[in-house]
Amino acid sequence: MIDYQKGTRMKEIFQYIQDKQQEYLEELFTFLRCKSVSSYNDGIKECAQLLSEIMEKSGIQTAIYPTQGNPVVYGEIIEDSALPTMLIYGHYDVQPPEPLDEWNSPPFEPTIREGKIYCRGVSDDKSQLYTHIKAVEAWKKTKGRYPVNVKFLFEGEEEIGSPNLLPFVESHKELLSCDVCFYSDSHFHENGKPQINLGVKGLCYVEITIENAKTDMHSMMATSIQNPAWRLVQLLNTMYDSEGHICIEGFYDDVRPISNLEIEAVNKIPVNEKELCEVYGVREFIHGPHSKNFYYNLIFEPTCNISGLTSGYTGPGSKTVLPRQASVKIDMRLVPDQDPEKILKALRLHLNRHGFEDAKMTHYGMVMPSRTRIDHLYVSAAVNAVKLGFEEEPILFPGIGGVAPDFVFTGHINVPTIVIPYAAADQKNHAPNESMVMDGFIKGLRTSAALPYYLAQIGRKGKQE
Amino acid sequence: MIDYQKGTRMKEIFQYIQDKQQEYLEELFTFLRCKSVSSYNDGIKECAQLLSEIMEKSGIQTAIYPTQGNPVVYGEIIEDSALPTMLIYGHYDVQPPEPLDEWNSPPFEPTIREGKIYCRGVSDDKSQLYTHIKAVEAWKKTKGRYPVNVKFLFEGEEEIGSPNLLPFVESHKELLSCDVCFYSDSHFHENGKPQINLGVKGLCYVEITIENAKTDMHSMMATSIQNPAWRLVQLLNTMYDSEGHICIEGFYDDVRPISNLEIEAVNKIPVNEKELCEVYGVREFIHGPHSKNFYYNLIFEPTCNISGLTSGYTGPGSKTVLPRQASVKIDMRLVPDQDPEKILKALRLHLNRHGFEDAKMTHYGMVMPSRTRIDHLYVSAAVNAVKLGFEEEPILFPGIGGVAPDFVFTGHINVPTIVIPYAAADQKNHAPNESMVMDGFIKGLRTSAALPYYLAQIGRKGKQE
Repeated sequence: MIDYQKGTRMKEIFQYIQDKQQEYLEELFTFLRCKSVSSYNDGIKECAQLLSEIMEKSGIQTAIYPTQGNPVVYGEIIEDSALPTMLIYGHYDVQPPEPLDEWNSPPFEPTIREGKIYCRGVSDDKSQLYTHIKAVEAWKKTKGRYPVNVKFLFEGEEEIGSPNLLPFVESHKELLSCDVCFYSDSHFHENGKPQINLGVKGLCYVEITIENAKTDMHSMMATSIQNPAWRLVQLLNTMYDSEGHICIEGFYDDVRPISNLEIEAVNKIPVNEKELCEVYGVREFIHGPHSKNFYYNLIFEPTCNISGLTSGYTGPGSKTVLPRQASVKIDMRLVPDQDPEKILKALRLHLNRHGFEDAKMTHYGMVMPSRTRIDHLYVSAAVNAVKLGFEEEPILFPGIGGVAPDFVFTGHINVPTIVIPYAAADQKNHAPNESMVMDGFIKGLRTSAALPYYLAQIGRKGKQE
Repeated sequence: MIDYQKGTRMKEIFQYIQDKQQEYLEELFTFLRCKSVSSYNDGIKECAQLLSEIMEKSGIQTAIYPTQGNPVVYGEIIEDSALPTMLIYGHYDVQPPEPLDEWNSPPFEPTIREGKIYCRGVSDDKSQLYTHIKAVEAWKKTKGRYPVNVKFLFEGEEEIGSPNLLPFVESHKELLSCDVCFYSDSHFHENGKPQINLGVKGLCYVEITIENAKTDMHSMMATSIQNPAWRLVQLLNTMYDSEGHICIEGFYDDVRPISNLEIEAVNKIPVNEKELCEVYGVREFIHGPHSKNFYYNLIFEPTCNISGLTSGYTGPGSKTVLPRQASVKIDMRLVPDQDPEKILKALRLHLNRHGFEDAKMTHYGMVMPSRTRIDHLYVSAAVNAVKLGFEEEPILFPGIGGVAPDFVFTGHINVPTIVIPYAAADQKNHAPNESMVMDGFIKGLRTSAALPYYLAQIGRKGKQE
């Protein structure tokens, strides 16, 4: 058990946060009202400027860095080089609000209803990153100093796939050097308990097309002209067997062994498969060759999923046509240490080896997977901060099924990366009526403030882990 | 070689046709101007009436029969029960003229340009059926009588799949009893030579759907929820092998053996595979297990063709989704004596046997195949008529790749059915700028007039063949 006595030092800070609650909400609302839609570049520049002003007012030295795309808002407090340095990542851009007519209140006018703040971007990621800014102010105002060094890296392109994040990090390695990366851009477990995520999946998205002729033809020609849809079926059949095993030669080669600690953690994640099946409207979950349970699969199993399949006539009723081409969109979610570039090459080789040299491949995205060791000392700092902030034990997720740019930090700055989410599972990010649960915001402010306290206790030795 | 001397009796008739050419064209143009679009019921009733009047004026006793759909225009000349009776089938309905802006002259205003009549329905099927009507007039005016008995069956629903043809035939078997059925609703060989068709393929069109969940899901769920697109791939893979063999158990059971005469005929059909490949923009034609050459396959090979394939996201770029369902549209072109109902049952059994009991099947159409014996005596009547009318040897097609309601006559009236086409291969039926080559129309008039002459020479003994 954590000793809340130890938290006596935090008492004064938590009191300060409580006193400031109304003021913080007002400032957050100003931040939320500032549209920052990256997909059609609406308000990005203004929002970066506003964010930097909020950070400055909170006692953080900031700088706006241009990139090939939207600017990065950087900030830092360097107290002492002997102290550990944490990097706080986040993003100030938001998803488009459309479809507008499905919102119950205007998408860019924050509105409180039944304990939730409704606004586009409120959970993804504005109020979550805001808690880390206010943690600085709370420490400075009550203790006169922050207990560790901190650097803030807020990008404006997360919702369009972070195309300039890695280039920025690569060209600013000195600036961003640190001991650990934290961020808050996810959600609690569906049972309402806080969770901590230590990894994400990678992605390799590829479209495979078999083209056979100049135009669609009368289907009578099928006696002499090869149907590209049949060839695509044959191609796909070489990639995946009826047991759920992915048959691309070498696909599983780089899968990192799963540690006993990770298995223990997954076994502790609450799960009600029957209830989940009902939610998704499926009879049962599949249990392939490696299958253990829902979360074990979600976290540790790579996938080769057909996201889209199309050929010929796809309207209602019938039309007799010999299609000129057939194509499939495949998204492969990868686990450490699978490398999407290597997988793409393996797929090309696989197709050639099976006689599909003519199949065209177009790739739409590659993201490296990432996973931080569950026994890393800095993980315990996050766990203790959540315990203090939420007065609850967080659920430890060795990874999640989603994709995020964690590898930019674990792979290019070489630091553990730990996600501490403050939004509820029903946050509806990316959808109309996005919300942030007020309780999560308040407890998030406390947790973000407690995080550097526990980090300072561990010190820089975490680095060597 | 045919003896044109024998044709001396036809000389007078051919002269009559030549003299009447302008008058026939004017009457045909009136027939063409009368819109008769079955798909949206425009002008059908008026056109049936007009057709019946044209027939009456030509010396044919007519009657308009109502059906559940569009009326049948029937006509007959019964000269002598000892003479053979031929049934002339045709259709007075036409395809819709859309897209209108692609026509070079108004679609329902017949226009002559460079030896062709342009008009919707001119080749499909108005001017072709018209030649058989005028054959009666030419005989009557020159010889005072028709040399055989003839019955005309012109339907108004061919372009929408002839839904009431079989019911009409079934309920008017006495009325329609005959020794042979002829019709002209097709086109010459692409080399410009006249051809005679003795068969058509059947059709079994089915859509197979695998449904898995209520909605599309985030693709991270692919670790626990079966992807219906992968199951569809596995299902399809049981139906067709990489050699082009259709693996539905029992599919080939009823395929009629091909006779040596049929093989000889197919070997005589001119074919330039290299040129055809260029036309269709394919590298080469497939040569499956039964494959001989282009026409051999087209005529004798049944198909199992994927006309459409769809699942999940099919737009541009990428979207990571686990589709809720996947479906395939399959058209099977059948050869005698495959029965589409039996094939459908075989497919259901096949799917069940391979573990796809949950796959839903929807069928959109079933047409029986048909093929008339190449050595039937009445075939020689058609050949001789074409020789005399076109002064060219016709190419004999034991069958074609397309579908037509021949089985209604071969299977339900039990008579040989022979197709004598007068349109050019580039007629563009069903497309804008449909045309009838003037030379084909004139020679068609002569051929249709010569047909009863040769039929009379054979007499009723053809029946026993």
